[in-house]
Amino acid sequence: MSESMRGLKRTHRCGEVVGATLGSEVTVMGWVQRSRNKGGVVFTDLRDRSGILQLIFEEDDCGEEVFHKAQSLKSEYCIAVEGRLERRSDPNPKLPTGELEVRAKTLRILSESETPPFPIEENTKTREELRLKYRFLDLRRPDLQARIMLRSKIAAEIRRFMTGEGFLEIETPTLIKSTPEGARDYLVPSRVHPGSMYALPQSPQLLKQLLMCSGYDRYFQLARCYRDEDLRADRQPEFTQVDMELSFVNADDVLAVNEKLLHTIFKEVLGVEVKLPIQRMTWREAMGRYGSDKPDLRFGMEITDVSETVKGCEFAVFSGALDAGGSVRGLNVKGQGHMPRKKIDALVEYAKGYGAKGLAYVAIQEDGSVKSSFAKFLKEEEMQALIKAMGGENGDLLLFAADKNKVVFDVLGALRLELGRQLELFDKNEFRFVWITEFPLLEWSEEEQRFKAMHHPFTMPMEEDWDKIDSDPGAVRAEAYDIVLNGNEIGGGSVRIHRSDIQEKMFEVLGLTREVAEERFGFLLEAFRYGVPPHAGLAYGLDRLAMLMAGADTIRDVIAFPKVKDASDLMMNAPDVVEEKQMEELSLCFRENKA
Amino acid sequence: MSESMRGLKRTHRCGEVVGATLGSEVTVMGWVQRSRNKGGVVFTDLRDRSGILQLIFEEDDCGEEVFHKAQSLKSEYCIAVEGRLERRSDPNPKLPTGELEVRAKTLRILSESETPPFPIEENTKTREELRLKYRFLDLRRPDLQARIMLRSKIAAEIRRFMTGEGFLEIETPTLIKSTPEGARDYLVPSRVHPGSMYALPQSPQLLKQLLMCSGYDRYFQLARCYRDEDLRADRQPEFTQVDMELSFVNADDVLAVNEKLLHTIFKEVLGVEVKLPIQRMTWREAMGRYGSDKPDLRFGMEITDVSETVKGCEFAVFSGALDAGGSVRGLNVKGQGHMPRKKIDALVEYAKGYGAKGLAYVAIQEDGSVKSSFAKFLKEEEMQALIKAMGGENGDLLLFAADKNKVVFDVLGALRLELGRQLELFDKNEFRFVWITEFPLLEWSEEEQRFKAMHHPFTMPMEEDWDKIDSDPGAVRAEAYDIVLNGNEIGGGSVRIHRSDIQEKMFEVLGLTREVAEERFGFLLEAFRYGVPPHAGLAYGLDRLAMLMAGADTIRDVIAFPKVKDASDLMMNAPDVVEEKQMEELSLCFRENKA
Repeated sequence: MSESMRGLKRTHRCGEVVGATLGSEVTVMGWVQRSRNKGGVVFTDLRDRSGILQLIFEEDDCGEEVFHKAQSLKSEYCIAVEGRLERRSDPNPKLPTGELEVRAKTLRILSESETPPFPIEENTKTREELRLKYRFLDLRRPDLQARIMLRSKIAAEIRRFMTGEGFLEIETPTLIKSTPEGARDYLVPSRVHPGSMYALPQSPQLLKQLLMCSGYDRYFQLARCYRDEDLRADRQPEFTQVDMELSFVNADDVLAVNEKLLHTIFKEVLGVEVKLPIQRMTWREAMGRYGSDKPDLRFGMEITDVSETVKGCEFAVFSGALDAGGSVRGLNVKGQGHMPRKKIDALVEYAKGYGAKGLAYVAIQEDGSVKSSFAKFLKEEEMQALIKAMGGENGDLLLFAADKNKVVFDVLGALRLELGRQLELFDKNEFRFVWITEFPLLEWSEEEQRFKAMHHPFTMPMEEDWDKIDSDPGAVRAEAYDIVLNGNEIGGGSVRIHRSDIQEKMFEVLGLTREVAEERFGFLLEAFRYGVPPHAGLAYGLDRLAMLMAGADTIRDVIAFPKVKDASDLMMNAPDVVEEKQMEELSLCFRENKA
Repeated sequence: MSESMRGLKRTHRCGEVVGATLGSEVTVMGWVQRSRNKGGVVFTDLRDRSGILQLIFEEDDCGEEVFHKAQSLKSEYCIAVEGRLERRSDPNPKLPTGELEVRAKTLRILSESETPPFPIEENTKTREELRLKYRFLDLRRPDLQARIMLRSKIAAEIRRFMTGEGFLEIETPTLIKSTPEGARDYLVPSRVHPGSMYALPQSPQLLKQLLMCSGYDRYFQLARCYRDEDLRADRQPEFTQVDMELSFVNADDVLAVNEKLLHTIFKEVLGVEVKLPIQRMTWREAMGRYGSDKPDLRFGMEITDVSETVKGCEFAVFSGALDAGGSVRGLNVKGQGHMPRKKIDALVEYAKGYGAKGLAYVAIQEDGSVKSSFAKFLKEEEMQALIKAMGGENGDLLLFAADKNKVVFDVLGALRLELGRQLELFDKNEFRFVWITEFPLLEWSEEEQRFKAMHHPFTMPMEEDWDKIDSDPGAVRAEAYDIVLNGNEIGGGSVRIHRSDIQEKMFEVLGLTREVAEERFGFLLEAFRYGVPPHAGLAYGLDRLAMLMAGADTIRDVIAFPKVKDASDLMMNAPDVVEEKQMEELSLCFRENKA
């Protein structure tokens, strides 16, 4: 049975009755959260996106027919009810509408529901795979709904702010040319041009720089981007970037407008006041203190370099690392000197996952005595000097990594975060921002034995370092910046090169011949021949930002129809085989050998 | 030579100096529109997105070095200038800044420009192909820039309005499952799932209906959509749809909110007041009066059915059409009785392009005498009756088509528009809206010898016609509506079926077995099992809407980087061949036989 809503007009969403006059007639529509008969009365919780509202059916009010229909109501039936808004005799303080109920006069069952494969409830325990298969039901859960709505509000506030600041949202194409570098492109075969492919964009980077060349001055876009990556825990094959670019600005201008943006959205969406200006930290400092270019500043436990302190000692792990040009650095885990050996061993295993060969430790007992994995290799005064350098006090646990700098930073950075989580060293509700600046312009690729651009080849080097580009290219810093929130890189960008002399030198340093550069960036280089404005930009990962703002554990919770790790959509069953006719039209076939 | 902008900060865009104090120091940046030396003075027109501003360089003000640099300026150089804002001695009334100029003190050439392949100017005569190859230069033209900015403003106003009305913008995925029907899908091969393909969406239709099932109540999205069509004049392989869906509403509710939307954007973007409510016309009436389901109501010249009047006559063309079940209908082209035979012949040819076998005419001369292609077949009183039926007066031209109804409507509808254009019967600046309602639910496919859904299989039939679904399915009207502006369908939508009994019947009528329906619409049908709300929606073509609002002749003028008829991008050279390695990763090969 299903009825039409003809002649009915909803007067309020469930949560909106709070603003209505007691005793007034209302018409509400939604889904049955639950319905129960109790002593000749049917109590029904009605749910819509605004909340839950209690309906009450009594035969004296609604007549026999309606009452019988009400008795048949089951979870997830979609219904419409006319009735009178009344004060509830047994208020439910957990609901915003908890002091109210609607005494029903009519009832229409707009459509029935089978029993759902899992209950529609907050904090579900249903496994995610099943929920993703029935995403349309999962999306009914009030907590997930709140997150999807929060994301929508974030996007709306971003757009409102950007438009107010004179940014133009300009749509860039998504069927573009493939530039095979970085992550893999998704390709789209062309029926009209057999043998040719479009690519889906990894970002609108080149196109937004073109728009600057064309004089649009301030561009932004919430742009769908695509990467055919080996999917890591929290990546999606398609994702949304809040992309912006500005002309006639320097890095400070970009940072300033973005601080205002962040302040606005946190204020408008969460009621949280972001303290401005946001702290800035150079890349070098972030690596040294936190072993990461995206440090979580909600807690301390900074890394200490003890290379100088231990350089004369006989512990081969330390001296070997130092001799090889590496370093020895440590973390002081305050008050954890009593940590059981088993837990320390687990930390060592964790560290190995980040490339450490091991982890040296010193557990300072409450009585000042020391348990250590390497005490026997150190003289007593060396041990005391090490403890002092680490600011070690009775009851502290000191952990050390000794290796190449990169490994030491990776290991201690990861360990610091893990300990922060285990020991609950930070406030989950705090939002702590930091700008990371002065990134290296280039990074050395061991694999290719050449320098590669750390951001992209159009990133402007810092003027004060430019004279080192030949003598010491690795030491040249870039006009690049990342915005980090609670240890997550939520956005990044740079000032772009607008001077042809610098651009040509950059290609040379990167080992790109003129021909290769033309092949890859042809239309941008072409555009650069006709008057390029100084320009700079930044892009946020909207999924990540929304996840953090929503307090969600995965970006899948802020995406209406997400894909899983293997890039498939469990609800739609995509990707899927297509008809032979479709392949034929595209002049395509699949290789026999799928190895 | 190119200089840094270090230490400079732009104070105004060119057009913004109008608000600045005379005599104040300003810093402006932009492109040289033109620069000329005249009697020891350099006059430079500086251009940015806000307008054009005159700069004046005199050696006494700026010194020798700057003056020499100024003398070297050429079109499209990107420069920065500090100077004093002054009143211009020779005002240029054509420019908003025409009473002002900046007396330059400093000049930096931020980057030079080669001579562009075509001049950057309004109302260009450069052929479009060249402009599209150099789109980054074309996009500098102030008239094109105004259109791109107008589109951006339209999008921003749509979003502001929709958000204010409680709509949530929810992003739907673009890597989805292919449903082979309607236009061709673009396919995207999957590396992770060799042999499988994603499809790019033709619209978010099914997903937005799912969102209604999930209780989001009011959804909208400016959604990128894709159709691999044989490209007609004004289609793009990727286009943007303003997509919306509402729950617990009827058609009137959808029309009402959309009238408010249209009113808002026309008011905010163009300052044009759309008169509400917008006129409604049934599909049947639109076809009968205008031969079109998207009538241009800016002028009259309606179609008259003269079948009854001519049914006894001996003119075989008329009687043949009537005998075959068709009709005879005519247009009265007022005051064109003097139209030369050659022009009438051209109209006949035009009509043939729309399927007419010919066109019968009666030219009533100023003296009341008649020239006609078929006078000899009609008795005098029959001719007079025909003229009377057509409201013919001295000096009028009457044109007749006789054929099957579909052909008659196509021909006279097209002819009416062509004559409207030729005779300039309408005001180009008028915006005339009309809702077309009560579309047929089904249309007969001659090719497949079965009924097909005119909109889509989820469109709700009109309740009052539902009893005819078996006896006369072609007579059942749908709860579907299109919004038409100046003869262009800019949007359309429908109430959707939410009742399972009606849905099953629809599939039956469409000849879809349960299995086929499941295969095609599986997850939507699955969702429908768990409580579907009544819902309805609408979608606009944003490109078309923006084109009409901008007064442009092609949608390419409101798209930053459009594609041409063969679906290629002339600037990026996309699509293009890709590396063999990329094909290999996708387990793909191209067929040898590309026939």
